[in-house]
Amino acid sequence: MNPSAKSLQDQLDRKFIKMAIRLAAKGAGFVSPNPLVGAVVVKNGEVIGKGFHERFGGPHAEVNALKNAGGESKGATLYVTLEPCNHYGKTPPCTKAILDAGVKRVVIGMMDPNPDVKGGGAKVLEEHGLEVTCGVLEEECKKQNEIFLKYVSEKTPFVIAKVAATLDGKIATAGGDSKWITSKKSRNFGHRLRQQVSAILVGVKTVLADDPMLTVRLKGIRPSHPARFVFDFYGKTPVGSKLVKTAKEVPTYLVVNDETDNERVEEFRRAGVYVWKMPGREGLIDPVAFIKRLCAEGFDSLLVEGGAAIHGSFFDAGLVDKIYFFFAPKILGGRDSRPMIGGLGFAKMSDALKVRDMKIKKLGEDFLVTGYIS
Amino acid sequence: MNPSAKSLQDQLDRKFIKMAIRLAAKGAGFVSPNPLVGAVVVKNGEVIGKGFHERFGGPHAEVNALKNAGGESKGATLYVTLEPCNHYGKTPPCTKAILDAGVKRVVIGMMDPNPDVKGGGAKVLEEHGLEVTCGVLEEECKKQNEIFLKYVSEKTPFVIAKVAATLDGKIATAGGDSKWITSKKSRNFGHRLRQQVSAILVGVKTVLADDPMLTVRLKGIRPSHPARFVFDFYGKTPVGSKLVKTAKEVPTYLVVNDETDNERVEEFRRAGVYVWKMPGREGLIDPVAFIKRLCAEGFDSLLVEGGAAIHGSFFDAGLVDKIYFFFAPKILGGRDSRPMIGGLGFAKMSDALKVRDMKIKKLGEDFLVTGYIS
Repeated sequence: MNPSAKSLQDQLDRKFIKMAIRLAAKGAGFVSPNPLVGAVVVKNGEVIGKGFHERFGGPHAEVNALKNAGGESKGATLYVTLEPCNHYGKTPPCTKAILDAGVKRVVIGMMDPNPDVKGGGAKVLEEHGLEVTCGVLEEECKKQNEIFLKYVSEKTPFVIAKVAATLDGKIATAGGDSKWITSKKSRNFGHRLRQQVSAILVGVKTVLADDPMLTVRLKGIRPSHPARFVFDFYGKTPVGSKLVKTAKEVPTYLVVNDETDNERVEEFRRAGVYVWKMPGREGLIDPVAFIKRLCAEGFDSLLVEGGAAIHGSFFDAGLVDKIYFFFAPKILGGRDSRPMIGGLGFAKMSDALKVRDMKIKKLGEDFLVTGYIS
Repeated sequence: MNPSAKSLQDQLDRKFIKMAIRLAAKGAGFVSPNPLVGAVVVKNGEVIGKGFHERFGGPHAEVNALKNAGGESKGATLYVTLEPCNHYGKTPPCTKAILDAGVKRVVIGMMDPNPDVKGGGAKVLEEHGLEVTCGVLEEECKKQNEIFLKYVSEKTPFVIAKVAATLDGKIATAGGDSKWITSKKSRNFGHRLRQQVSAILVGVKTVLADDPMLTVRLKGIRPSHPARFVFDFYGKTPVGSKLVKTAKEVPTYLVVNDETDNERVEEFRRAGVYVWKMPGREGLIDPVAFIKRLCAEGFDSLLVEGGAAIHGSFFDAGLVDKIYFFFAPKILGGRDSRPMIGGLGFAKMSDALKVRDMKIKKLGEDFLVTGYIS
């Protein structure tokens, strides 16, 4: 291939992988703990099939895209964000479907990080004479599956700390008033975050103050509500709260301390609430023990929505992977106003946690800071 | 003039006013309470003279630019960021110099907001047959002189609150350790801020903790140190501190409460420190009384560098015009860590101060948020 044809092909490869990434995103909330995957079938420069992994246990993206192409895939190029699988799991191997369809070339975003699969799918396709290109927009594909990547490599949930604060780092007044710090645009973004995780956590104070639903409410998007967890050391969540009243529709967990009265626990259970008894101290559940249990029960991700004491305990224990800090153009002031992050904190400024790969994004009049904790 | 020639001229006008704005900036720190002004003389598309208002009481920008053009200004265009004056002040009117030089056209950034001058200069020039264009890059010119504009229109100093914080809104650990929150790049930017104001304020706790100089230290720039003020209710500043020891070189003011022991006050005064006795309560000087006095003594601007209690008192009293919040990609956490802004704050979130025209700028690994308080 001459250099300019090569560069044109690179450009097209990126374009179609990008399209596949956007398709993959549609599975958010429905595939956990599987990865998000999107696929596009292209023939003579034209898209003839699109697909994505739509739900856990359902057909893989490649299969959906090939099916969407309706038997026209012979000689085509398949673009897929994640290396096709080569093993019988809940579905037959995708490599078989690709070979059967007569695809000529396969372009892959990222390789499968799963040690059982690594290199398997691509290798098999090459052995059968297909042209295989790997690593196109690899970083973007990895970012889209950062939850999955952590979960398969470290076998522990990806933890996101979300905070909405004023520009001076306050989340509520001394009296607890916090409505509304950020704009509707930021709050909508918060709902999109909820859609992407399998569990969400708040403290009982939030339940007592706001009686929240903690569900996903987004226009035009079929919601996938994360399981709702409340750190409720003393079991104070009202039985009449929205969370308890809707516990049979959306999984709801109260995490109480070991010594909580069994009668109270039974009352919650009768209402359809799962109750976890866990260790803790000074009114706060031990976040390390909690994460272990969460992992054991198959949750791949947790969105911690606060308040300050819970966020503090997670940062203190080094459990946070990623932050989403929403800032509103407001100054609340007040030495007794509530800070974004409580807990013990660090004794020296030089020991403060570093935020890697910090990105700032305007969201209407607010802005959002994201980053990773080293 | 045909449309394309008109558009070319507009473009050139903006280019040369921009150049004049950059020249004007060189006066920062030396012209207070005068405005920053820059001027460029252009003949046949070529810059033949440049000038700026270099120091309070010195020649105006236009005069310097015309002088720099060395008698070649006949038929030229003069670009100037602020409307030329038409009155005898510390120097003869600039309109006279412009007319004497034989300039044909004058392009003005912003009109003089001073009620005595308004429209005067431009009108006189037009009456003498010069072509006058006003309002080129007017917003940028006004922004550059925001201190001056507030001072002439409201007769009170422009107050800037500067804070360097972690991403979770902390300025120090519970024990007071704050070194270093932000990077060298942000700290350098802080020095540039100091250069632009006539006064700087910190609390005595900062003096006791850091023994700071509070001077301007910038490579390649002749420093203009602001007068240094310390809110020191009980007169605890050590006589051996750097501030007191250098009080004869850089003006230094201790603001103590009305009841401070006169012997202590005399000791400070002997060391060359100005002492202001002012009202206050609970260990904190009344910021309203302070600003009044500051104004009466001819200061056009104040940079409040903290700590939290002082910032809080200024926000509580509605005295802050502009914020410069520097954020480092760090999380300190800790319920007892020190917040960015203390004071009383607001009882309801909906009463929080609004930040207008918020801008975010990356500064190395940190970012800076600026904005205006409504």
